[in-house]
Amino acid sequence: MTTLNLAQIQQHDPEGMLHLLSSFSEQCKRGWEIGEAIKLESCDEWIPNNIVIAGMGGSGIGGDLVKAVVGAQFPCPIIVHRGYTLPAFVTSQTLFIAVSYSGNTEETLLSVEQAFSQGANILAVTSGGKLKAFTDIHNLPCVMIPAGQPPRASLGYLLMPILSVLARLEFVPDLDFQTDLDETIALLGKLAEDFHPEALESQPKQLAQALCGKLPVIYAPQELEAIAMRWKGQMNENGKSLAYYSVYPEMNHNEIEGWKYPSVLTEQCYVIQLRDPIAPSQTQRRMGITAELIQPHTAGITQVNSAGRSLLARLLSLVAIGDWTSFYLAILYEQNPTPVERIEELKRRLAM
Amino acid sequence: MTTLNLAQIQQHDPEGMLHLLSSFSEQCKRGWEIGEAIKLESCDEWIPNNIVIAGMGGSGIGGDLVKAVVGAQFPCPIIVHRGYTLPAFVTSQTLFIAVSYSGNTEETLLSVEQAFSQGANILAVTSGGKLKAFTDIHNLPCVMIPAGQPPRASLGYLLMPILSVLARLEFVPDLDFQTDLDETIALLGKLAEDFHPEALESQPKQLAQALCGKLPVIYAPQELEAIAMRWKGQMNENGKSLAYYSVYPEMNHNEIEGWKYPSVLTEQCYVIQLRDPIAPSQTQRRMGITAELIQPHTAGITQVNSAGRSLLARLLSLVAIGDWTSFYLAILYEQNPTPVERIEELKRRLAM
Repeated sequence: MTTLNLAQIQQHDPEGMLHLLSSFSEQCKRGWEIGEAIKLESCDEWIPNNIVIAGMGGSGIGGDLVKAVVGAQFPCPIIVHRGYTLPAFVTSQTLFIAVSYSGNTEETLLSVEQAFSQGANILAVTSGGKLKAFTDIHNLPCVMIPAGQPPRASLGYLLMPILSVLARLEFVPDLDFQTDLDETIALLGKLAEDFHPEALESQPKQLAQALCGKLPVIYAPQELEAIAMRWKGQMNENGKSLAYYSVYPEMNHNEIEGWKYPSVLTEQCYVIQLRDPIAPSQTQRRMGITAELIQPHTAGITQVNSAGRSLLARLLSLVAIGDWTSFYLAILYEQNPTPVERIEELKRRLAM
Repeated sequence: MTTLNLAQIQQHDPEGMLHLLSSFSEQCKRGWEIGEAIKLESCDEWIPNNIVIAGMGGSGIGGDLVKAVVGAQFPCPIIVHRGYTLPAFVTSQTLFIAVSYSGNTEETLLSVEQAFSQGANILAVTSGGKLKAFTDIHNLPCVMIPAGQPPRASLGYLLMPILSVLARLEFVPDLDFQTDLDETIALLGKLAEDFHPEALESQPKQLAQALCGKLPVIYAPQELEAIAMRWKGQMNENGKSLAYYSVYPEMNHNEIEGWKYPSVLTEQCYVIQLRDPIAPSQTQRRMGITAELIQPHTAGITQVNSAGRSLLARLLSLVAIGDWTSFYLAILYEQNPTPVERIEELKRRLAM
């Protein structure tokens, strides 16, 4: 069996995903600073009816994390949009944030054009491409982030500038992230050391070993849905592994009943439960009882707890554990985690 | 192997799920009539900032279908809420629709109380229980639907009254479902005949045979997400089978890459692609190319096309195919589709 020592890892990671994982803390710090430099036109006395964050894959997940961090307290709904066609409610009363790391994601480009024609107030986040050109032509605010790495390894750049901008909007006077940000950056720095291959044992290494050869199923309270989605996507893209997720309490109304057939397959599914104090006590109880009920039908269940004090730190600590786990899973499958060959093949065929 | 003849089916279906499936068309008709009898206070000159539909499991999916039918054209976002804690944006500018078939779903009860205290405009849909009592105490409008069947077999009662009410709201003057409703009811009646066990062959029977012993993975364009969710839930609750779903184009940005490991498991996953003209042409192309790319790594892929002219008819035709498939899957697993023993066991333990 492949072991997770540094030499073996470096052999399978020629494009340096290890370095990107290790520098997540600095990236978050830099991402915040980039956001701070953005000037929006004054939003005095304007409260949007809704905020729509458009993005796909690694670019879209930043929007889900924004929603997870500030959504519950926000005076209007934050809606993450993934697709071509924009709903009619996007109007001049909408703050529309278009996120495309490359700037060339066709779904996001079509939706930002439509948002513009429907009169929405637009902010873009990108490293360049057609999205940058679009904002130049129409003189729209654009957060420029560094180019040249996989979008999924750029979460600090895709998330933090948006949080920074939202924290300064006058219609949400109570958002003050400075203390939380300092805590988050320090915690992520420490986790990168704890999870580095040179640390002999770590939770991500153990989890990757448990998940290797199994189908990962991620369960989380709905308050952590963004994190569950991130874990799934990272298992897919880094680990080249199929993976699924569901949230509590909804899964208690259907999916829990499904852990019966086909039994030869449920016994090959390994469950990760993401835990955080943000979940209501009733949901915490549901997670415990559900684990007891389904355990005999699974390959195993592991509880993964968040670390840190602030919500921002806790959410990103869970992101870090999942990111490192997906990385080690790739190594165990003897895969280079960086290339996403099938996604590229699909894009080639779409362009034909 | 279990065969799908009427005698065998009746043996495994002592509580009459077959009858409920067969009468879906009439239930939709009756559900609409129930909705028509509801009088809301005049909504003249009032446009809500958002509509929130709260419900869990079989009661919640009605909200997703409402969104799928009218969401794209609506002047405000429709948000389906599944959980205990309500976001801050639910205010007096919100139309809050609480859906609980039993009237005793704890998540929905807590959220409707919170919505009421936040000043939202409330409409309830229930067969009785504590939700009915709550609306009586506070003199709130309540759609009363017939009691005594599984919520998942009551979709006509849970969906149609809401559509009927929304169609009469003055802020959406263009909704006119009368023709679509007639088409839908006729089509569902015909499908019930086509799919009945006495019809020797049908797509649901074939699909159930393909899915038996496999892990069903449902893929749909995001415009059909509600239908994919319904299929998954019905596989879980009727079929007692684990199942997952994902939507296009998002899955092209991550999940498509996961169809590699663990290969012994991906080869046991059977993919159903739900197809309908509502998906943009780009998404249709993505579905075709994705099927080609992942086919060798799956147990098989079947395309399932909607029937009918109107969006309402097409969506509900896909619901019907999935409902019948999950029913036949239960029979193939020699299971009574009606009881959900583990969900009941969970509720008992939560109440302790």
